Amino acid sequence: MKIVVDAMGGDYAPQAVVEGVTLAVKELDVEIALVGPKDVVQSELNRCGCPEDKVEIIHASEVVAMDEPAITPLRKKKNSSISVGINLLKESGYDAFISAGNTGAVVAASTINLGMLEGVERPAIGLVIPNLKKLSFLIDVGANAEAKPEHLLQSALMAKIYAREVLGIESPTIGLLNIGEEAGKGGNLAKEAYKLMEGRIKNFIGNVEANEVYTGKSHCIVCDGFVGNIVLKVSEGFVESAGKLVKREIKKSPIAMLGAFLMKIGMGDIRKLVDYSEYGGAPLLGVNGVVMISHGRSSPKAIKNAIRATKREIEHNILAEMRKELNKSYCPQQD
Amino acid sequence: MKIVVDAMGGDYAPQAVVEGVTLAVKELDVEIALVGPKDVVQSELNRCGCPEDKVEIIHASEVVAMDEPAITPLRKKKNSSISVGINLLKESGYDAFISAGNTGAVVAASTINLGMLEGVERPAIGLVIPNLKKLSFLIDVGANAEAKPEHLLQSALMAKIYAREVLGIESPTIGLLNIGEEAGKGGNLAKEAYKLMEGRIKNFIGNVEANEVYTGKSHCIVCDGFVGNIVLKVSEGFVESAGKLVKREIKKSPIAMLGAFLMKIGMGDIRKLVDYSEYGGAPLLGVNGVVMISHGRSSPKAIKNAIRATKREIEHNILAEMRKELNKSYCPQQD
Repeated sequence: MKIVVDAMGGDYAPQAVVEGVTLAVKELDVEIALVGPKDVVQSELNRCGCPEDKVEIIHASEVVAMDEPAITPLRKKKNSSISVGINLLKESGYDAFISAGNTGAVVAASTINLGMLEGVERPAIGLVIPNLKKLSFLIDVGANAEAKPEHLLQSALMAKIYAREVLGIESPTIGLLNIGEEAGKGGNLAKEAYKLMEGRIKNFIGNVEANEVYTGKSHCIVCDGFVGNIVLKVSEGFVESAGKLVKREIKKSPIAMLGAFLMKIGMGDIRKLVDYSEYGGAPLLGVNGVVMISHGRSSPKAIKNAIRATKREIEHNILAEMRKELNKSYCPQQD
Repeated sequence: MKIVVDAMGGDYAPQAVVEGVTLAVKELDVEIALVGPKDVVQSELNRCGCPEDKVEIIHASEVVAMDEPAITPLRKKKNSSISVGINLLKESGYDAFISAGNTGAVVAASTINLGMLEGVERPAIGLVIPNLKKLSFLIDVGANAEAKPEHLLQSALMAKIYAREVLGIESPTIGLLNIGEEAGKGGNLAKEAYKLMEGRIKNFIGNVEANEVYTGKSHCIVCDGFVGNIVLKVSEGFVESAGKLVKREIKKSPIAMLGAFLMKIGMGDIRKLVDYSEYGGAPLLGVNGVVMISHGRSSPKAIKNAIRATKREIEHNILAEMRKELNKSYCPQQD
């Protein structure tokens, strides 16, 4: 198994990425192809003391910055680590591509260069999130900001396959993220998607309100990429802002400071309970290849966990399962 | 000043509502008209020991349930507390209407029976939220799930007036909630709204990502009612689920339990820092009357605070200010 990793993707690249890769090849049974400027990557590998036999370097002279347009790897920077990495996926011997870089650029390059799976019109990014029971799968968190009802149906089908094959949930339930529980709630997109999903998804449990995202009411929660990205970012921002607010309050009281200290000793960092880096990456689904998108602020641990999650996808043959099942998705009354 | 309150609105009505009204008339200089079945309301007033001279009862025989269609007070239940309450607003002597009942029903009854302000096509619900600096105003959190770019522009104008007049922010900044910072990000709605707002809103600071909702980056944050409702509910659900998760972890460690106990002694309940009931109500803007929507789970304190916020709106003559400024909103290059 050989996983291609974008050495230059993310706010802390290449340092955090190469450190993460080093952790991964030591702990997991994987081989990695690191894509980036050869000298830069080699010197990072040396710094990290990475086992050389598990890692090859593929040279890519350019880097797509986090704020460049999504089209950049396709037009202006064809020698970027994203372009070169995605193109490697098309060659035999490489099983997946991971990047913590510019999400829009990874989505665009994957969609155009790898193409779509049959039965899927738009890519969607899934996100494994912790909940009160165990895990939920939120899809789409940002690939397709202008979704049509059919796209949500296709996301639902992909989520079901992913949750079953990769997350090991035997018969995953599917909910539609909406602003009310009853059928007929929401805007036109939600209303139409509800009708489509009701007819074609066996374990469709109807609408799920956003306050149920973290309760585990549904295994899979489907929404368009705009709304999903808002859910993700609001949650992240909330943790950060609430953390700062609490810290400020704690500092006002010595008793509270002692309390916080004891809590940390007793149970570790609270933020770990809601830490996305535990899963490490968000699969880009619908494209004709295994692509994993990591958070821009990925730590080495997050990169390692993303490699672990990608490995699991490959082992469970996610792409073959998708190809097998999505074909029949257009027949009414089936899923 | 006389404020009409829906005695039957909310999950804990009429008890919590009448208790809240009792607190309000004791603490604030307001008179209240409570709308609901006369016997029920009278017996609650007796139970709460409410000062009789500050409260009148207006009989309404029906109640709109929380899960009934929005159209209910207009079609099936014209004698509901919502219908009767909204109609009172049109008569002289009553200044505002507050309900913790079925939000969709309050929005529909207000829109149809009160009509819209000139220059506004759709109602929008604003929400005052705590942030790291002080307060932000998020609009719309659920009145209009199928918004057009012009509606977002109108919401922005209303938010600016509300933040200045009622929240006392001298020159409020306006941000557009989007899934990227740069212009041109997002779906069609966000892209078009950006262009409109850029030209016509003086303090427009561009796109605001959802992780900035609680940092205070912008005084006012504009989005459609679907997305705003998601932001609100995700935040609520997150607080609740994270709270449960932390409680569960604390119980595993005696040291953490002691720590949590000391923290609570030192700084009070952490959840208070992000408690929406501190403001108590969300103004329904754009309709031709002062209408305040309270959370379905409103406590007596939340009802009292909603009455306080409504009183402030009336004192600052919010409706007159809106009428004065919204008229000129269609002239380019002005706000």
